[in-house]
Amino acid sequence: MSDLKETQISSEKIFSGRLINLYFDQVKLPNGETSTREWIDHPGAVCLIPILADGNLCLIRQFRYGPREEFIEIPAGKLDNGEDPVDCAYRELEEETGFKANKLTFLTNIHPAIGFCNEKMWMYLAEDLEKTENRLDRDEFLELLPTPLNTALDWVLSGKITDVKTVIGILWAERILKRS
Amino acid sequence: MSDLKETQISSEKIFSGRLINLYFDQVKLPNGETSTREWIDHPGAVCLIPILADGNLCLIRQFRYGPREEFIEIPAGKLDNGEDPVDCAYRELEEETGFKANKLTFLTNIHPAIGFCNEKMWMYLAEDLEKTENRLDRDEFLELLPTPLNTALDWVLSGKITDVKTVIGILWAERILKRS
Repeated sequence: MSDLKETQISSEKIFSGRLINLYFDQVKLPNGETSTREWIDHPGAVCLIPILADGNLCLIRQFRYGPREEFIEIPAGKLDNGEDPVDCAYRELEEETGFKANKLTFLTNIHPAIGFCNEKMWMYLAEDLEKTENRLDRDEFLELLPTPLNTALDWVLSGKITDVKTVIGILWAERILKRS
Repeated sequence: MSDLKETQISSEKIFSGRLINLYFDQVKLPNGETSTREWIDHPGAVCLIPILADGNLCLIRQFRYGPREEFIEIPAGKLDNGEDPVDCAYRELEEETGFKANKLTFLTNIHPAIGFCNEKMWMYLAEDLEKTENRLDRDEFLELLPTPLNTALDWVLSGKITDVKTVIGILWAERILKRS
């Protein structure tokens, strides 16, 4: 395998945000030449496929300011500083949906935007759910949308669901739930 | 359905890059309160699942500076200003792999990073490929990795492939190719 690696020559922090930081770097390319890379530092996140007692997926509906659209999604949230992804998954599920999971199964990691961002997500299946109460962040608004797996799958295949973590979560759930 | 929409009060452009722009906005929340949103403006992109004459998928291997890792991916690239996604798909496939597609089928749209970015991707199946020559950008380095669909699927399920467009492309290809 040829060496494809790019190495940092210098790095300038352009922006420090609540969620993301932006850097502008000079890099050395594999052929020895130089170029620039603009990239986003992200703390990482978790997402979950919550299975309700009746077998429905506990999807949510949320407005997203970047794309200026409402999306149908699986619950998700970013890691707090130093937080273990498993702890984050339990916390975010309860905060967003008001359900505590008694069984959490790691499914896979995904990288959403490798072209410009280091975000890594941990994906879990959440089962044996127990009702508690949701406690959303003060600037977070969402609606629960309990949905049969077959309907969710139809929404993926018809393009009604386009959020990547949700597309992957539903296709993954179909593999492990319908074939087991 | 309750109103989940957030509306812009003001917007500050923090950074103008080659690929992305960063904005910092004041927004009005659904409950009338205000908050801030940091978000990335992205031109949009295409990605393709190229099927070689022998049935292998034409995957690629590429170093990604944001996450500082090599990834196994399907070919992809950003839209030029005003470019039609179909034209972009033909162009990027040839630039990155050296194959011209004689048949392109739209599969779906995906949104990779709705938490902070407006990027939208168009995904295509590329068939009936004809060898030409690749013409990478001067700061782009990659290797072709022809891979049987079953192997690619194993790599998704084992976590060797984690790039979201590639995970979705392979799971989608399995649905339409293996079941047809």
